[in-house]
Amino acid sequence: MTQNAASSATGTPVDTLVNQVMDHIRQRIANRSLVAGARIPSIRQSAETMGVSKSTVVDAYDRLVAEGTLVSRRGSGFFVAGQTSPLSIAQLAPKLDRAIDPFWVSRQSLNSDDTVLKPGCGWLPPDWMPNDAIRRALRHVARGPDAALTDYAAPLGSLPLRDHLARRMAEHGITPALDQIMLTESGTQAIDLLCRLLIEPGDTVFVDDPCYFNFHALFHAHRAHIVAIPFLADGPDMDAFEDAAEQHRPRLYVTNSGLHNPTGASLSPVKAHRVLKACEKHKIRIIEDDIFADFETSPAPRLAAFDGLDTVVHIGSFSKTLSASIRCGYIATRPDWIDKLLDLKIATSFGGGNLSSALVLSVLRDGSYRKHMEHVRQRLARTMTDCASKLAELGITPVTPPGAGMFLWARLPHNIDAANLAHAALKQNIILAPGNVFSLTKSAGSLMRFNVTQSLHPRILAFLNHEIT
Amino acid sequence: MTQNAASSATGTPVDTLVNQVMDHIRQRIANRSLVAGARIPSIRQSAETMGVSKSTVVDAYDRLVAEGTLVSRRGSGFFVAGQTSPLSIAQLAPKLDRAIDPFWVSRQSLNSDDTVLKPGCGWLPPDWMPNDAIRRALRHVARGPDAALTDYAAPLGSLPLRDHLARRMAEHGITPALDQIMLTESGTQAIDLLCRLLIEPGDTVFVDDPCYFNFHALFHAHRAHIVAIPFLADGPDMDAFEDAAEQHRPRLYVTNSGLHNPTGASLSPVKAHRVLKACEKHKIRIIEDDIFADFETSPAPRLAAFDGLDTVVHIGSFSKTLSASIRCGYIATRPDWIDKLLDLKIATSFGGGNLSSALVLSVLRDGSYRKHMEHVRQRLARTMTDCASKLAELGITPVTPPGAGMFLWARLPHNIDAANLAHAALKQNIILAPGNVFSLTKSAGSLMRFNVTQSLHPRILAFLNHEIT
Repeated sequence: MTQNAASSATGTPVDTLVNQVMDHIRQRIANRSLVAGARIPSIRQSAETMGVSKSTVVDAYDRLVAEGTLVSRRGSGFFVAGQTSPLSIAQLAPKLDRAIDPFWVSRQSLNSDDTVLKPGCGWLPPDWMPNDAIRRALRHVARGPDAALTDYAAPLGSLPLRDHLARRMAEHGITPALDQIMLTESGTQAIDLLCRLLIEPGDTVFVDDPCYFNFHALFHAHRAHIVAIPFLADGPDMDAFEDAAEQHRPRLYVTNSGLHNPTGASLSPVKAHRVLKACEKHKIRIIEDDIFADFETSPAPRLAAFDGLDTVVHIGSFSKTLSASIRCGYIATRPDWIDKLLDLKIATSFGGGNLSSALVLSVLRDGSYRKHMEHVRQRLARTMTDCASKLAELGITPVTPPGAGMFLWARLPHNIDAANLAHAALKQNIILAPGNVFSLTKSAGSLMRFNVTQSLHPRILAFLNHEIT
Repeated sequence: MTQNAASSATGTPVDTLVNQVMDHIRQRIANRSLVAGARIPSIRQSAETMGVSKSTVVDAYDRLVAEGTLVSRRGSGFFVAGQTSPLSIAQLAPKLDRAIDPFWVSRQSLNSDDTVLKPGCGWLPPDWMPNDAIRRALRHVARGPDAALTDYAAPLGSLPLRDHLARRMAEHGITPALDQIMLTESGTQAIDLLCRLLIEPGDTVFVDDPCYFNFHALFHAHRAHIVAIPFLADGPDMDAFEDAAEQHRPRLYVTNSGLHNPTGASLSPVKAHRVLKACEKHKIRIIEDDIFADFETSPAPRLAAFDGLDTVVHIGSFSKTLSASIRCGYIATRPDWIDKLLDLKIATSFGGGNLSSALVLSVLRDGSYRKHMEHVRQRLARTMTDCASKLAELGITPVTPPGAGMFLWARLPHNIDAANLAHAALKQNIILAPGNVFSLTKSAGSLMRFNVTQSLHPRILAFLNHEIT
């Protein structure tokens, strides 16, 4: 109701008159009756000529200055912008011919265009997200204190949000003190800061094979030596892990304990114990990336809970569950590491803001987040079943049994090359995520990650049917 | 008006009843009539006992789950959170004894506490910021499309904001195409990404002496060899620049052309030309950090305008003028560098969001930003004059003649050590910015940067009067 009332308030006659004055000036510039550098009629003159009030003209001129069409010179009036911008609005051309690399799916998926279907992308479609709750949160913050609007946040970030995060983590048995939690701009920035802290160029890091493809890009940016350990249905292949640890002396291992990306698998308690023992023995630090936590229907063990945040760092964000547009991630780790991470965060991004935190906290606190996630988990369960069955009809079979979350990690029939299929799909404006994007060893050539929330469009199923059967 | 209407809407009786139910449950937990793990009364029971509707109880329980007090187990009801958080809300203790280093002023200034005065901090006080315009922008975005609320932004960032930025830059003679502009989370992140692109560990970078202290921290994080070039009233000392370039073969130079931090000086056209010639000769790339642009009253030349964005990269943000809480910076550079920067941005922070861009654009477009900045420039001019005169009475004299912007770079009388003075000030909850925080060569021992908007508090003047005279 507030929304409608406010909408109509912006459509008042005054607003229309301001737009009319703006259009009039723009037309005179377009038809060159006013040229670059020309002084435009005074406020009084324009008000008389156009039969509007002086305040309407002032508003219109201000907005034309704000959009760069006019410039104002104090004391001498308004002028047509002297050096008009030589630019026209043009969309980025799709990069059709780019080789499949860790950036390929990211860039393609991020270039938003409603005509493109994205069964390969790693997030929920907009209509699955809690848009109404976020609108409420925006209005809530608009009524709140100034600090969230303009000021820098404290170095660790919003205290009430850290308090809330501590309570959430406690549900998984992870019990950081409040000053063991630092907010970041995103989950990715959290891992990036940890790389700056924990590894040097040339150090070896372990990733899962397959793993979230951006881990490859991120560690590559840190000039790390990346070694991929086969990931099975309940966690890493521990024999391979131990052998590779002996051989490569890694400093760091990054993984998802609950709802692994891309496989959808969860770590078993037995594997969790073995991972921790091996990492303790070989002095390997662990980053546990928990951004899919709230999609879980039966909780997996968390490495950080067993380890007490000693060498396991726990990170997360709300990009997948609440909003990717409200940037907010976090790190929970040892106090001495937090202290160093704070310096790194200030050096490389200075202060954060409280706006994102205030918005996230507002949605978390008013109960709408819990309802939203309950709804999403139920809808995901139905959609996963539906998608698995549709893909099975095409001979595409799950590698990990379909479970919670949005990902189905599946094998194409007839040894079809997933990268070739993805190239063919792109020509039809369909973005797929071929297995080898996730596999450092390129051992997933006929596998594919399907985001079940974005895979059931008839055009996708028709494409797969045509190409596969 | 919308604001008031909405405020009263949240104070309806229903909301009060929900809070009463929540308080009742919280009290029973506090007085241990309900213990951890206990099942709490069913919704029907509570509604009957407390004489409220079932939907009120449902709301209250949902919020108690959202805040972590209760947990909900599907099918079996609500329970007191099994593992209550062992944490209490505690503020970060001020780090009084920490040595003065590049992080000192940052951390102290960012730890916000209303009892602390901050003449040493690098931004405007909250009541100088356009809070009302931001409240309007929040309500505007709350009425707008979903994409700004939940989705990732395109890799380059919001197209309409980039278009607006291009027009702003054109006013300074800088004319990037739209795909030569990339949005970032902040100005600092912009420089950080450029460091990843342009320098290797061990490379030499030039900074000004003095310069914004966080440049030291940032380049240190990139393991660069930092060389500081004396900065005079109209730009760098070019003889020293040339000699150091011969000797150190730097890869990069970072500076502020308009309103240099901390000196408040501006680059002269003659110096701009000599800087560009020297950097061309020695193949030095330049980052021109323009975050103080909108404080200027008489525009300085921009290196990026002379150079056509060939080897000069232009960056900026709205942290100092619009909001530090709405994170939004930008980079304008060559297309081939943009392409590489995009990969680095995706790898290290994945997608940005459109929320910050939508908010910034809303404030820029409706004319309120221009009015706000005009007001700020006038108020700054008065405050600068006032502050310079008050400091002169104490024998504190400007090094750079007082001009536009918020910084007065000044010399203490009697060779007083600025770091000692800052330590004494901290004991009285006053944060100063001693000169050597900005000087790599520690040649500014009796200089001090005053933020004139935060220096006129009687307690500060009394402290300085007591310590100095």
